[in-house]
Amino acid sequence: MVDVGRGGGAVTTGAGEIFQILRDGRARTKAELATLTGLARSTVSLRVDALVASGLVQPAGEAASTGGRPPARVAFNPLAGAVLAIDLGATHATVAVADLGGRILASYSRELAITAGPTVVLDIVVDDGRRLLERHPPGGANLVGIGIGVPGPVEHSTGQPTNPPIMPGWDRFDVPGYVQRAFPVPVLVDNDVNLLALGEQSLSWAGVEDLVFVKVSTGIGAGIISGGVLQRGAQGSAGDMGHVQVPYSHDSPRPTSDERDLEAIASGTAIAAELRAQGIDAKDSGDVVTLVREGNAAAIAATRQAGREVGEVLATVVNMLNPSIIVIGGSVARAGEHLLAGVREVVYRRSIPLATQHLGIVQSQGGETAGARGAAIMVTQRVLAPASVEEILVADTGRFAGSS
Amino acid sequence: MVDVGRGGGAVTTGAGEIFQILRDGRARTKAELATLTGLARSTVSLRVDALVASGLVQPAGEAASTGGRPPARVAFNPLAGAVLAIDLGATHATVAVADLGGRILASYSRELAITAGPTVVLDIVVDDGRRLLERHPPGGANLVGIGIGVPGPVEHSTGQPTNPPIMPGWDRFDVPGYVQRAFPVPVLVDNDVNLLALGEQSLSWAGVEDLVFVKVSTGIGAGIISGGVLQRGAQGSAGDMGHVQVPYSHDSPRPTSDERDLEAIASGTAIAAELRAQGIDAKDSGDVVTLVREGNAAAIAATRQAGREVGEVLATVVNMLNPSIIVIGGSVARAGEHLLAGVREVVYRRSIPLATQHLGIVQSQGGETAGARGAAIMVTQRVLAPASVEEILVADTGRFAGSS
Repeated sequence: MVDVGRGGGAVTTGAGEIFQILRDGRARTKAELATLTGLARSTVSLRVDALVASGLVQPAGEAASTGGRPPARVAFNPLAGAVLAIDLGATHATVAVADLGGRILASYSRELAITAGPTVVLDIVVDDGRRLLERHPPGGANLVGIGIGVPGPVEHSTGQPTNPPIMPGWDRFDVPGYVQRAFPVPVLVDNDVNLLALGEQSLSWAGVEDLVFVKVSTGIGAGIISGGVLQRGAQGSAGDMGHVQVPYSHDSPRPTSDERDLEAIASGTAIAAELRAQGIDAKDSGDVVTLVREGNAAAIAATRQAGREVGEVLATVVNMLNPSIIVIGGSVARAGEHLLAGVREVVYRRSIPLATQHLGIVQSQGGETAGARGAAIMVTQRVLAPASVEEILVADTGRFAGSS
Repeated sequence: MVDVGRGGGAVTTGAGEIFQILRDGRARTKAELATLTGLARSTVSLRVDALVASGLVQPAGEAASTGGRPPARVAFNPLAGAVLAIDLGATHATVAVADLGGRILASYSRELAITAGPTVVLDIVVDDGRRLLERHPPGGANLVGIGIGVPGPVEHSTGQPTNPPIMPGWDRFDVPGYVQRAFPVPVLVDNDVNLLALGEQSLSWAGVEDLVFVKVSTGIGAGIISGGVLQRGAQGSAGDMGHVQVPYSHDSPRPTSDERDLEAIASGTAIAAELRAQGIDAKDSGDVVTLVREGNAAAIAATRQAGREVGEVLATVVNMLNPSIIVIGGSVARAGEHLLAGVREVVYRRSIPLATQHLGIVQSQGGETAGARGAAIMVTQRVLAPASVEEILVADTGRFAGSS
């Protein structure tokens, strides 16, 4: 029995900070944690004991002895709990179970039209989630929260979609309230591109504090991480890159009277329209990808030009936000290096040298479950934050004990 | 004597959080602080006692009694310490002493060319600062840090200007190291426009988490606060709005072959050049302001058009960052409502409705000492952060006792 009661937090306060250090997965001794935090050895010991009692941290063998009894190590136990991650697209849904480190343990994808409306869609994915949680992780899940991505703008504080253009019936729908009728845990909702940014950062760019993710697919959107934090803006509409006006460029083949938003010029849909105007059979974004992969010269040229137009807007973003990494994803990016080549060409020419000398422009490494991974990260960022962990330790000693 | 030693922080850990609550200046009882923090009354009492012993917090009378002895109140003591704030412009310098709330107690301005180089300039303003600190605050200052704003890009982590175009001799100069030879306290350096953003937020928009400040003067620059935090970007060049390419617009009188950066089109310098091309005698930004104030029709029209060009770039910023307030400052903004009218015209037309429905575009309220105020806020954000306050309480009990 650990004394977590003295002063209502004298032991648990600071445990959240120790836990953050351990979240990288490395095993450490209490002495190492004392050095890293600057706290007294005795304080660290009490707090680590509270974390071990909770189940969030577990014994992890012994360090090399320097004489005498070898010191015990402890490590984060990501299997102490599970997160349900739901990625809703326009026409399909992925439901996944992730551990507390954001690793996907199992996932299930299905065709599902977002236009079927919130109750139909959410009933189906909640049901998928319940089935997954019966078997993953083995031994039953200790569910800590649910993260949901949707293809439209979301007021993050309430989890309500706000005027989502391709989601009829979802405007101002109380997604968390509805899902909590099935699972009474924290439910967080965000725009799918924001979650792709979080997923990409956690998968490939841990520690990178300034990252912009751009999705070029049927539409165009961005997720912005600045100062290490996903930026949603005042109403949650940050990253709406598709509705940005493209700066004029001498190099563009467009006539100057062609004054449209980026999405109308450079999305997969727009490239398909451009190819049709050239007499090529291309219905949509998917056809563009197929044509590019087949080596169709016109499709390749149009995709590269779309990259240049995206680059015109990104040059502004680079000057204003000075990111160190721009990740280009979405189906059009996956069709090959052509989109990226166009983006790089313009950004490196247009932006100031100080902002581009250490700038990387790279292709997304996230696969089919990248959105679900981002949804899981969104949840763990909230429920495993220092203050949340300390609350758990005070309110619910042993919350995660017995899991794993 | 307060016991701050037990467990190396068992009492002081959490004191930082209590202190943050008190920083708004309101007096509160220990019972109120216990309710606000969720901590046990006994814990709050020990921590408040440590804060009072340090001098950062002081007794502030009694609350109304509900029977029995009336409960004592405590409040933040902004005069417990002082900050030296130095705002260096191209041709002048302002040195100020501020209290720990960022309020300017005294300031001194002088002509001073930044081109004189770092040692000459810094020797002069350090000397000005020493003189100010002898008399303000009354009784002698307990200096906690120095904040310095410079007219160029800065690597914030080291305090070194990086390739500043109008500051010959300052590139990679160790500003903190040099100033610390005179004052051995933390010295923080940032770009002047970033500090104007901080100053404006603290003066007029406390609590606003997403604010963009734009300075239109000889040049054009921006300071970006997102998610409540000033964003400097990976290399500290965030907010370089002057080098952004202006999106093409039908409405612009410029020919489409006129492909220039915003600063070359819409700064005070650019407006003066435009007026000279019309045969009007306008040497620089200052002449533009004078002409506008005199009611010169051409100068007013050119200033309004400059506002529209700034608005074209801000429309992109609004879509990407979704701020709730855009503050327009700098000498050209102070010449009247004309610049703002042009900005508003374009931003409200161009940006998506979700991002503009609650967006305010306002004129800067900061006066001559706004930059110095921002420099002071930068310092207090660092030295009065929860972890810093807790370190002070552990390392240096009574650090501020006897001040005020």
